[in-house]
Amino acid sequence: MFPMSLIVQKFGGTSVADTDSLRIVAERIIDCKKNGNEIVVVPSAMGSSTDELIQLANDLSENPTPRELDMLLSAGERITMSLLSMHLNSLGYSSFSLTGSQAGIITTSRHGQAEIEEITGERVKEGLENGDIVIVAGFQGFNRDTKEITTLGRGGSDATAVALAAALGAERCEIFTDVEGVFTADPRVVNSAELIPEITYEEMLEMASSGAGVLMARSVEFGRRYNVPILVKSTFTNNEGTEVKEKVMEEALVSGVTHNTKEVKFTLFEVPDQPGIAGTVFGSLSEIGINVDMIVQNVSKDSITDISFTAPTEQKDAVEDMLKNIAIELKAKGYDVDENVGRVSIIGAGMKSESGVASKMFKILGENSINISMISTSPIRVSCVIDSKDINAALEALHKEFIEKE
Amino acid sequence: MFPMSLIVQKFGGTSVADTDSLRIVAERIIDCKKNGNEIVVVPSAMGSSTDELIQLANDLSENPTPRELDMLLSAGERITMSLLSMHLNSLGYSSFSLTGSQAGIITTSRHGQAEIEEITGERVKEGLENGDIVIVAGFQGFNRDTKEITTLGRGGSDATAVALAAALGAERCEIFTDVEGVFTADPRVVNSAELIPEITYEEMLEMASSGAGVLMARSVEFGRRYNVPILVKSTFTNNEGTEVKEKVMEEALVSGVTHNTKEVKFTLFEVPDQPGIAGTVFGSLSEIGINVDMIVQNVSKDSITDISFTAPTEQKDAVEDMLKNIAIELKAKGYDVDENVGRVSIIGAGMKSESGVASKMFKILGENSINISMISTSPIRVSCVIDSKDINAALEALHKEFIEKE
Repeated sequence: MFPMSLIVQKFGGTSVADTDSLRIVAERIIDCKKNGNEIVVVPSAMGSSTDELIQLANDLSENPTPRELDMLLSAGERITMSLLSMHLNSLGYSSFSLTGSQAGIITTSRHGQAEIEEITGERVKEGLENGDIVIVAGFQGFNRDTKEITTLGRGGSDATAVALAAALGAERCEIFTDVEGVFTADPRVVNSAELIPEITYEEMLEMASSGAGVLMARSVEFGRRYNVPILVKSTFTNNEGTEVKEKVMEEALVSGVTHNTKEVKFTLFEVPDQPGIAGTVFGSLSEIGINVDMIVQNVSKDSITDISFTAPTEQKDAVEDMLKNIAIELKAKGYDVDENVGRVSIIGAGMKSESGVASKMFKILGENSINISMISTSPIRVSCVIDSKDINAALEALHKEFIEKE
Repeated sequence: MFPMSLIVQKFGGTSVADTDSLRIVAERIIDCKKNGNEIVVVPSAMGSSTDELIQLANDLSENPTPRELDMLLSAGERITMSLLSMHLNSLGYSSFSLTGSQAGIITTSRHGQAEIEEITGERVKEGLENGDIVIVAGFQGFNRDTKEITTLGRGGSDATAVALAAALGAERCEIFTDVEGVFTADPRVVNSAELIPEITYEEMLEMASSGAGVLMARSVEFGRRYNVPILVKSTFTNNEGTEVKEKVMEEALVSGVTHNTKEVKFTLFEVPDQPGIAGTVFGSLSEIGINVDMIVQNVSKDSITDISFTAPTEQKDAVEDMLKNIAIELKAKGYDVDENVGRVSIIGAGMKSESGVASKMFKILGENSINISMISTSPIRVSCVIDSKDINAALEALHKEFIEKE
């Protein structure tokens, strides 16, 4: 007999959309159990049920109370987890479900965007010792001081799963979703995109932050910090999926090409250049929870400078409100908001030891008559903000040159 | 200014079926608040959502695990209470919602049929002291030993509301529903049925136990034990409703006529009469949780007797399984199951001091050619089991003679 391994399996909303999907999910879990593993399962809310609850909330309140919104949304996973558990029980596999607070998922108190601080997991461990399949609600937790139920925000169920895997010392965390894994580019845009069998945490972090929707950066970061391998795969096929881990066999120069069209570019024009300007701008933005993606400050000319940055489209109104005030405060000539932008990025751990990758990217975009309006780089990523109409052409060209030709 | 009173308001499923209904519910709450009251609100799950969840459970499991079913069903009130709370907040009325366990509703551990043992209510009291409208999930509680979420079974939200009113020393408990209150007979059957403005706990208990669906006996019993007046009224009209309390101004001979068609009559034939027979039969039934309503044992003849009893239709199969075994054990000649029966009852506190009411009832039924197959009485109730086809005629006749002519 093999030594028993602990595996955390997370199933996303589309994987648990209805009772038929839940039956398939149960098969996946039972297969894993039959292979001699201990299993903790983290389900999301069913299908679009979270969106439907948000719609009800918005119908009744312009600004739903964050605490009550968390109370509302935490009902979603409760439904999936109890249904899944009773189904497993009816198939003869002993199972029970735990809410975030029952599982000891302790979070910060920030409703709607809580962060996991600690997982005590006592009842999870007891269940595993009894041979039970333990089902833990994704996306939700509990704050010890306020005694309130919290939710983790977007990607919260993935974060729950990876954090649980870390806290329990699981062998790996399996993220089941409706796609086959992580691709070299979005297959909906680039036909020749291929599944990446393995990828490093670092690369995956950059991919996630620059547009690859399959995994959220926060769960990858959890995996990296506690060295929990994450396997991303489809609930509905038997594909191998993508393994995200510390080291891969061969580091590609460019592992993937990503894009993000949900960004807006903001520019403050002709700001008198003096120490602390950037601090004022980005300090104010971060205070209201705006995630600034890219920042470019022009070289100062006659002590006047332009500052550009991008932020997620959904935060456009909040940023614009803030910019109006800041423009006055900093005596800027004005500001501009450009929604017709997008970002393409190339990501690869091999870049660290190879120069010239960025300039090759600029050259490819230039050859395709694509104008670059902002650039940002990390040791393993180069991103360019371009006109949104050029995004698909840029992706195709970059994928062809960096992935298909290598 | 009036002295502040504490009022508990409970809203049933049809009163919170959709966002439009929730807006009306909020108006009711705000009206009460504007009258200078402190308010605790107990909402049910929205419309048919509990039934829909049960359907999902049955689709995935023949015998849903009771603990998981409670986990599942407790999601329903969570949705209503948080939506209602955020709506009140958006209207400028400070409010928050509490789950059964957050409100300190401590129950027995029996899943699906838990009984309230104690309500600590600390967070409820804190909220009231701050002037908040506190919303508490109906139907659910928490067991201290098992640390599990429980549900209270049918009529559970009413029970929550009345028990909360008792624990908090509320002035009254208002049960808002989709009917105007308690009627002298079911208005769907008896056109001339009238609203009863006030009724004693005792009478209401008998009405509830004998077919009046508007209130469950368990919540009336709570009200009686702790002397909490219960006001039953419609969410959607401004009718005064029915007040259930200790004493009424004038005790009617017959306050109401009720009927119940969801009963089955069982008979064990020719049982050798010996001490302990009834104990064997009804002990076995109560062990498996069967509520026997009426029992008749014929006068023994040649040491042979017949035993008849009625039980709720939904428990028919369970009773029949049990009867098969008991018939053999007791050497009975056989047993019979009759589904074509119903029960009519007259209820009135005035009966206690007046004789001849039962015989008048039998006479009325006889005059209408209605055959009586079983009779049971209490100090304030007379019930007759009759053929189900005669129920409507019996109701009309009894209502006419006892209510309209008085």
